Amino acid sequence: MTQEGILIVISGPSGTGKSTIVKEFIRRNPSVQLSVSATTRKARPGEVEGINYFFHSEDEFQKKLHQDAFLEHAVVYGNYYGTPREFVREQLERGKDVLLEIDTAGAMQVRKKFSQGVFLFILPPSMEELHRRINHRGTETPEELERRMNSALEEILHLGNYDYAVMNDHVSDAVQLIESILKAEKASVVRSRHYWLKTFSS
Amino acid sequence: MTQEGILIVISGPSGTGKSTIVKEFIRRNPSVQLSVSATTRKARPGEVEGINYFFHSEDEFQKKLHQDAFLEHAVVYGNYYGTPREFVREQLERGKDVLLEIDTAGAMQVRKKFSQGVFLFILPPSMEELHRRINHRGTETPEELERRMNSALEEILHLGNYDYAVMNDHVSDAVQLIESILKAEKASVVRSRHYWLKTFSS
Repeated sequence: MTQEGILIVISGPSGTGKSTIVKEFIRRNPSVQLSVSATTRKARPGEVEGINYFFHSEDEFQKKLHQDAFLEHAVVYGNYYGTPREFVREQLERGKDVLLEIDTAGAMQVRKKFSQGVFLFILPPSMEELHRRINHRGTETPEELERRMNSALEEILHLGNYDYAVMNDHVSDAVQLIESILKAEKASVVRSRHYWLKTFSS
Repeated sequence: MTQEGILIVISGPSGTGKSTIVKEFIRRNPSVQLSVSATTRKARPGEVEGINYFFHSEDEFQKKLHQDAFLEHAVVYGNYYGTPREFVREQLERGKDVLLEIDTAGAMQVRKKFSQGVFLFILPPSMEELHRRINHRGTETPEELERRMNSALEEILHLGNYDYAVMNDHVSDAVQLIESILKAEKASVVRSRHYWLKTFSS
């Protein structure tokens, strides 16, 4: 009996190093599957169907949308993007964990449709550090810098909708914390109870 | 600002190696405080007040009991034992985690009075292994063996009242899982939210 996989949803304001954490987490945990989005955007050279994206015509996408086939979706620059429910479900049933990096709006859509996911929010260690990271290249105008700081702070107010806060001070610490969270979640009685009662009732 | 410590409550049927896990966990995490029980039992040579136990007269114990000063209590061979609420609270406020190893009846009393604790249940990896461990010394009569197996299986039915199931296949794995659970719990938004909102609202 294989325990079902876990859908890990990761969000966080820009400037928190979210993508670096996701990349390092997958490198250290190659058995975890990155979620593959569906999109109406045309494939770029080198992009592979089912690996980078599931490419759909707009008609196909709309049809799937009406079938409630996406855990979340959004329109970006006129193209549709969505997280295929079926792809995620198949991985989880095979016992594979799935990682989805997504903005707070998308994460809240997923939460409504798939509440058994684990929702992580990446945070910078401090206000000063957030400022430093956003200003990293030193190329932003003061107005742009202020706009990005405000937008990051607004994002942080979404923290209350997540399960775990992951501070990104050092990437390896943040990755290890996510590994701990995943281990703990797998051991939670809510998720493992069925397995254990079966083991000891035979 | 120090994050408050966590009360970790550990139970599990006999034969699961619970005490070995607790001992190894404390060895690897010396900053975690073992809970110190209050008792009406007389101190034995070498036992130190406040380290091994808080020694009370029966009058004192009864008085404290009426003041609701214990997170749980029990009578064993005519002596009272209890977990002093104040001692636990002081440690947690100082940011220290407290570990309490206790039977399922005691754990359920603690859960009612201190639901923010983290409740762990230690499990043997399988029915066969439980049998092997209980029969370890080979000195039990068949009746005694059956009684101990039944009592262990009855205990396992309490699993649903706990937060996490910790399989004790190898002690070091079980200890690492408890460390992961503790890290994850500290990062849970429920526990850390106040800290983060304060950090980013200043």
